[in-house]
Amino acid sequence: MKTQRQIAVRNYESRKGFIHHYQKLIKEVVIPYQYAVLHDQVEGVEKSHVVANFENAAKAVRGEDPGDGFYGMVFQDSDAAKWIEAASYSLAVFPDKDLEQKVDELIDKIEAAQDKDGYLNTYYTIKDKEKRWTNLLEGHELYCAGHMMEAAVAYYETTRKDKLLGVMQKNAAHIYQRFVTEGKEGYPGHPEVELALLRLYRATGDRKCLELAKHFIDVRGVDPEFYKREVENRDWKVWGNDASNYDYQQSGKPVREQTDATGHSVRAVYLYTGMADLAAETEDQELLEACRRLFESITNKRMYVTGGIGSTVLGEAFTVDYNLPNDTAYAETCASIGLMFFASRMLEAEVDSVYGDVMERAFYNTVLAGMQLDGKRFFYVNPLEVIPGISGEAVTHKHALPQRPGWYTCACCPPNVARCLASIGKYAYGENETTIFVHLFMEGKVSFENGLTLSCETKYPYEFKASYQVLEGNGNMAVREPDWSRDKFRILVNGREQTGIKKKGYWYLEDIKAGDVIEVLFDEQVKTIHASSRVASNSGCAALQRGPLVYCVEGIDNEGDVLSLSYAEYGESKAEKFEPELLGGTIRLKVDGYKTAKIQSLYTYEKNKPEPYTITAVPYYTWGNRGLGQMRVWLPERS
Amino acid sequence: MKTQRQIAVRNYESRKGFIHHYQKLIKEVVIPYQYAVLHDQVEGVEKSHVVANFENAAKAVRGEDPGDGFYGMVFQDSDAAKWIEAASYSLAVFPDKDLEQKVDELIDKIEAAQDKDGYLNTYYTIKDKEKRWTNLLEGHELYCAGHMMEAAVAYYETTRKDKLLGVMQKNAAHIYQRFVTEGKEGYPGHPEVELALLRLYRATGDRKCLELAKHFIDVRGVDPEFYKREVENRDWKVWGNDASNYDYQQSGKPVREQTDATGHSVRAVYLYTGMADLAAETEDQELLEACRRLFESITNKRMYVTGGIGSTVLGEAFTVDYNLPNDTAYAETCASIGLMFFASRMLEAEVDSVYGDVMERAFYNTVLAGMQLDGKRFFYVNPLEVIPGISGEAVTHKHALPQRPGWYTCACCPPNVARCLASIGKYAYGENETTIFVHLFMEGKVSFENGLTLSCETKYPYEFKASYQVLEGNGNMAVREPDWSRDKFRILVNGREQTGIKKKGYWYLEDIKAGDVIEVLFDEQVKTIHASSRVASNSGCAALQRGPLVYCVEGIDNEGDVLSLSYAEYGESKAEKFEPELLGGTIRLKVDGYKTAKIQSLYTYEKNKPEPYTITAVPYYTWGNRGLGQMRVWLPERS
Repeated sequence: MKTQRQIAVRNYESRKGFIHHYQKLIKEVVIPYQYAVLHDQVEGVEKSHVVANFENAAKAVRGEDPGDGFYGMVFQDSDAAKWIEAASYSLAVFPDKDLEQKVDELIDKIEAAQDKDGYLNTYYTIKDKEKRWTNLLEGHELYCAGHMMEAAVAYYETTRKDKLLGVMQKNAAHIYQRFVTEGKEGYPGHPEVELALLRLYRATGDRKCLELAKHFIDVRGVDPEFYKREVENRDWKVWGNDASNYDYQQSGKPVREQTDATGHSVRAVYLYTGMADLAAETEDQELLEACRRLFESITNKRMYVTGGIGSTVLGEAFTVDYNLPNDTAYAETCASIGLMFFASRMLEAEVDSVYGDVMERAFYNTVLAGMQLDGKRFFYVNPLEVIPGISGEAVTHKHALPQRPGWYTCACCPPNVARCLASIGKYAYGENETTIFVHLFMEGKVSFENGLTLSCETKYPYEFKASYQVLEGNGNMAVREPDWSRDKFRILVNGREQTGIKKKGYWYLEDIKAGDVIEVLFDEQVKTIHASSRVASNSGCAALQRGPLVYCVEGIDNEGDVLSLSYAEYGESKAEKFEPELLGGTIRLKVDGYKTAKIQSLYTYEKNKPEPYTITAVPYYTWGNRGLGQMRVWLPERS
Repeated sequence: MKTQRQIAVRNYESRKGFIHHYQKLIKEVVIPYQYAVLHDQVEGVEKSHVVANFENAAKAVRGEDPGDGFYGMVFQDSDAAKWIEAASYSLAVFPDKDLEQKVDELIDKIEAAQDKDGYLNTYYTIKDKEKRWTNLLEGHELYCAGHMMEAAVAYYETTRKDKLLGVMQKNAAHIYQRFVTEGKEGYPGHPEVELALLRLYRATGDRKCLELAKHFIDVRGVDPEFYKREVENRDWKVWGNDASNYDYQQSGKPVREQTDATGHSVRAVYLYTGMADLAAETEDQELLEACRRLFESITNKRMYVTGGIGSTVLGEAFTVDYNLPNDTAYAETCASIGLMFFASRMLEAEVDSVYGDVMERAFYNTVLAGMQLDGKRFFYVNPLEVIPGISGEAVTHKHALPQRPGWYTCACCPPNVARCLASIGKYAYGENETTIFVHLFMEGKVSFENGLTLSCETKYPYEFKASYQVLEGNGNMAVREPDWSRDKFRILVNGREQTGIKKKGYWYLEDIKAGDVIEVLFDEQVKTIHASSRVASNSGCAALQRGPLVYCVEGIDNEGDVLSLSYAEYGESKAEKFEPELLGGTIRLKVDGYKTAKIQSLYTYEKNKPEPYTITAVPYYTWGNRGLGQMRVWLPERS
């Protein structure tokens, strides 16, 4: 039993302001653009061929010649799945017959590409059926299946149309047959199917999906040598991944014994999301305890202040505790989305504001930074320091691009941002039989299964107040107190200040009812953040945060030179007025600081006295939207 | 014509103190140890097989079965060469019949391994003669030849025995035949033969050696596509180096047009050394101008404050301007030795203290740090920040070992340190017909070709005075004023302060003669160094230097925690008394600073007020000699 659970995406509707702007951008720009990319209708971007792959696979299934064959990464199918999932969420908020028809057409193509036995993956169906299930380490069959299951559930939940759901139930049955009934050994190289099977289980009630998810989680790492044998038993490879790098694939130990978040960071958080979901679903305390340890390992030892995770491009991976380089960070957009998934499932297991805090940090900083403000360009990698001439250029910094490119050969992040933003309501709000939960503060109308309906008015994250009006029903309400608003957090119910029950960072309000107005007031001060001295890269440095937004300093606002700046240790940071025309509407900070004169020599014995300088900072999520320039989140601090 | 030239190694004799200690260590520990390694007589270290390779190659040359064949890197021969070179220099200072006999025996084996046509390289002679000269990119034949030429010259200069010199003249003639007479295209993948041929030319007077050196320098990069064709024309590889990575092999442009120091840093500085030597030897102004640009590129944009070069392990290479990460630095010991070579040859082209300054910085910091104080263990990589748990462990830091290992599979650095220290006299002193030059300040007796003989008394780098007594002869004397002693540098001749001629950082004293006493007095203040604000990794940080010694802060002197420390911007730095028992005899600094309390969380909004703390610093070259711990050269600075 879950303590509380995500609301259905269709039950949250944004109407104006910050979140609505993003959801509209997803609907109007991102989803149509990605649709065009998937159909190879966009000039000058990497070829996708995703839809063509399904068409060609359908021919192969029918025994016909598969046309121009397969093109793309081994996990190319997942781009279609993520697009359907994003479109489904968007349809829940913005009904759109045309888009729905496009999804239906694509689903028809997917259905046609499914083999009679339920198998579905265009790479193997087109290229070589004999290779199926022979390379779990790199083959991404279970990964693609997982994404398509999520798409099926999302589309079903929005439209109640169950064609894709049926396809994926059949696919799940095929996998169950292979791995449970026939006892084929192994577990997914890239976790994803675990969390997807649990969603499929809840959508269909099919306990075999639950059982299969549990199976993959239970067997993982019990026999770490599995991948080595697999390599020996096959004569093909995708990239030649090192089967003995247990850390990379989170398989050195059974998951219940794992203590450190390791390896490929997206794989890690997808796995932990499935684990947390299963732990709550089955009340598996040992598994939940492992999840707590892994969450703590990430968020207290291996996470950037922006909610980014993955310190290195080598394996797109976690490294070791407190190794958080700012300039060579990987901090993949997808990984922060996965961290939100994990945090949200942990909240379902136990309501504690640490999870909501991390979800909010990842969302408002790394996830939003992953997308250009116009919705047309995307970052995979979200560094905390960018220096033109070094970033994207030095051999060690090739991955840390100083500007967002349009589309990638490996296009995982853009559709992931789309599905995250389109479904943000389910992360923001939760419920159980008696109580509704506010995890994130987002404008809109939200209805709950117990009949409560709320309307939220807020200009968050740029105003420090959220007003909830109860439109219908009655029940209890729990509201997260953010870490950055600790002790300066107030709740007024119908104008009366609450001093009531606070448990693990949530305020509990009993018996709210139609007509009540609940006002939540946050700390509006600019906060100075310091990192633990164990983090070498941030020694002597500070970062700024206001509300959930971590700020950064860009060259364009500071005479092109960020590297010469430092914050004044006891100085003031003033928030400017909201500027609707700047960076999609934002608030800049004016911060007391210093600027060091440029010296020509590499080293000097001369004192280089810094002059007072007012530094301008902007929210991290807006960086890189005004051309090429320096950027830093952490600046040295001096008094 | 050279403005001035290195003295012969045999003309400098250290007698006591800092340099003498090192030269004795090389003679008593390093040379015997390396001799044993080369003969595979040391248990528990990487197999060398170097001597066995020569024995087996001799069998192959005689048409016999080559026994257990070849073992080791493609450039394994160069270990023998570097050992002979080091032994030769050591013999010049410390005559030793037993060692000389060992060298003679090894030379006999080398001679026997030379093919009738003059070819000499055990890898190709044993493994496959057909591969000769087919892989200049990776094959290291010219590299090994170069090192053996240097060995031959060094042994000849010390002992006047010319057997190896003859072998290498024959070898040079063979290479000349191939590349000049027959016009075989190409240039060395790893430069070294250029600088060696110039030495061979000066030892033998054979102008074909000069011509061949000039040939290799002239053709380099004129046809950047050469290596690509070479790859296409051969069916074997060593590592599969990328032939189109022109930067890596300094071959994208003719050398006279190159502006940035790029690629593998040892290769780069070996090349530039040959270029500088040739430029001075042939009065080639265009080539000299290129050398000036490259020297400037290194020392004003791509050099660590310790004189280390090479910012990344990827290719052991330079990256881009101002990218100088402290923790992931490569800063190979051999590269700093090569930088000394380059600087010393630039000094021969034009007397300017910038060259001596860099030579001194590289020597007293990175080069000396490359060797454990006991002479038994060595660093390849010389990082400026070490954190146990990260250094040597994180996937990005595997190369940055926190402690010196014993011997390496690729054993280039240990014998390079040995030959550098054993021959340090030629870097310290220079001469031309009229004037003697003091580039580095080193105790000992030194005699010059013009009949002048000096005795130098100094406890440099731990005392800030050097006294020179003229024992014989007369002439002019020029003394470098170090950059760190600018404006606090005094010279007294027979007690009278000199206010004479200073040109490009050198003081010129005329008509010194037997009986004169020249006292040089340096600034003994601890200097605070700041890096250009373009160097992101050192933002807000300072480093300390006293005399030529850059200091670092180690955990063992500071309660195990260096990451919590910062220097006080306007604080005092006091030099302690010389401690003869500490780290082979050193002076510690006590520096006003601060220590931040450890916080448990990764990030905090709380002020974390630092407490005043007296920081203890030790010279960088001594780091890592007292067990595993944190180390930093740059600390944040706060007021």
